[in-house]
Amino acid sequence: MSADLALLIDTAEIGRTGAVGDVLAKRTGPVLAIDHHAPNDRTIDGILGSNFPSTGELMFHVINRLEVDITADIAEPLYSAMLYDTAQFRYVRNDPEVFQVASLLVQAGADAEGIARHLFGTISKDSMLMQSRLMSTAKFELGGRLAWSPVTSNTLAGLKLDRDEIRSMVDVLGNIDGVEICVLFKDYDGPKVKISMRSRGKATVNDVAEQLGGGGHPKAAGADVLMPLDEAIAKTLPLLRAKLSPSDPK
Amino acid sequence: MSADLALLIDTAEIGRTGAVGDVLAKRTGPVLAIDHHAPNDRTIDGILGSNFPSTGELMFHVINRLEVDITADIAEPLYSAMLYDTAQFRYVRNDPEVFQVASLLVQAGADAEGIARHLFGTISKDSMLMQSRLMSTAKFELGGRLAWSPVTSNTLAGLKLDRDEIRSMVDVLGNIDGVEICVLFKDYDGPKVKISMRSRGKATVNDVAEQLGGGGHPKAAGADVLMPLDEAIAKTLPLLRAKLSPSDPK
Repeated sequence: MSADLALLIDTAEIGRTGAVGDVLAKRTGPVLAIDHHAPNDRTIDGILGSNFPSTGELMFHVINRLEVDITADIAEPLYSAMLYDTAQFRYVRNDPEVFQVASLLVQAGADAEGIARHLFGTISKDSMLMQSRLMSTAKFELGGRLAWSPVTSNTLAGLKLDRDEIRSMVDVLGNIDGVEICVLFKDYDGPKVKISMRSRGKATVNDVAEQLGGGGHPKAAGADVLMPLDEAIAKTLPLLRAKLSPSDPK
Repeated sequence: MSADLALLIDTAEIGRTGAVGDVLAKRTGPVLAIDHHAPNDRTIDGILGSNFPSTGELMFHVINRLEVDITADIAEPLYSAMLYDTAQFRYVRNDPEVFQVASLLVQAGADAEGIARHLFGTISKDSMLMQSRLMSTAKFELGGRLAWSPVTSNTLAGLKLDRDEIRSMVDVLGNIDGVEICVLFKDYDGPKVKISMRSRGKATVNDVAEQLGGGGHPKAAGADVLMPLDEAIAKTLPLLRAKLSPSDPK
C-alpha cells in the first residue's frame, strides 16, 4: 500500500480489523485511529474520544475542524453512524450535545426518516423464524429471572442468518421483561457445546464461565465445553440459579 | 366537574376519549385541545400544531411561552412523549427542530437513557410467545411480498397481552423485510373472522376491505366476515395477490 496515512475508524485496535489488519501490518508509514471506544493497552494513537457515545459524532467534529462544509452527502453517513451506534438515541449518556449534532446533520440534509427505516425498519424473515423457534424451546425459571434455550441444527435448519443475527440470538431472551440472566446452549457446530451467557441485572456471569473453562466480560461471557448437550445444560444451570438465589444478592 | 377549563392532550376529538368524553359532555364551560394530529371535521378548537411530529414537542413550546422554567420534572414526561410518538426519533419529518428540543430537554434533566430503556427496552414474554406462534403459522407468497397467518385460540392460549400488543400483532408480519402486504385472519372471538390488512408498499388495501364489507385507511384496513376461517382466507388472498401482480402496479 502506498498511501501516506492509514486511518482506522471506530476501532483503535489493529487486531480487531481482521484481513485489513494483515495488510496494515505489512506496510510502512503511520496508522492512526479515530475512535470512541475506551482505550486499552492495545490501542494505537489517533483522535480518541471515549467521551463520545458514537464515532459518528466524533467524526462530525473532526470534519468541522477541517473546515469542510457538511453537505448532505457527508451528513447522511454521519447521522447513520450516530443512529446505529447509539441504538436510536438510546445510549446517549444523557449528553445534550448528541442531539445538537443530530440537529445540524438533519439541517445539512441527512434523511433521518429514511436512514431509520433502512437501519431499524425491518427484520429478515429468517431472523423472525429463528426467534420463533428459539422461543418455542425456551425455558423460564425463577419467575422468569433465568431464561435458557438449546440451539440445535433444528433451530437453524433452512435459515440464512448473518453474523450479527447469529451473535444477537442470545438477546432474544435477554430483551424479555424480567429476565436477569439468559443463556444459550449452542450445539450445532462441531462436538463442543458453546455456552453463551448474558446478565441484564447485577449478577456477573464471567465467573460462571470461568468455572466452565471459559471467560469473558462480567455481563457477557461464555465457554465451549466438550460434553453432550444435556450434560452441558445440567452442569451450567445450577451455577446460574445460585447467582440469582435470594440469599446471594450478587 | 367544576374546573374552569378542560384540556384534551394528544387528541382534538372528544369522541376518541371514551369515558372521559362522557364526563366532558355533561359539563358546562370550555374544552380545548393541545394536539398534533391533522384536524378533521370532528376536531375541537385549541392549540393545534399538525406540523409537529409529537404533541410532546408542541407542549414544550406551550410551556416555554408560559415562561415556566423547564425543570427535570417537566422535561422527563415531555422527552418521554417525544420519544414514544416519534418511535425513537424515527418519524421526525426530517425537522432539525425536533433534535433542538430534545437537546434542551436532556439539558434540563430528562434521563434519555432511562426513558428509552423503560419505553423500548424490553418485550413481555407473552408477546414474544405470541410472535413465535404467529411466525410458526405464517405463510409467505409471491417471493415474500404477501404474508398472512390465521390467529386462533391456539395462538393466544395462556397468554396475557395488552391492547397495544393485540393491535400490533399484524406488525409482526409487516416488519419483515420485503413484505408489502400482510394480513391476519383472527378467528378467536365470536363467530366472525376479523381480517386485518396492512400495506407497507404502494398497494392500497381499503378497497379490498370494502369488497369484503369492511373499510379503513389506504394502508391499514379490515373487515369482519361471517364465514368459516378457511373460506375467509380463500376469499381474501386472491384479492390481495391481484394487488401485487406485476401487471397491476398499484
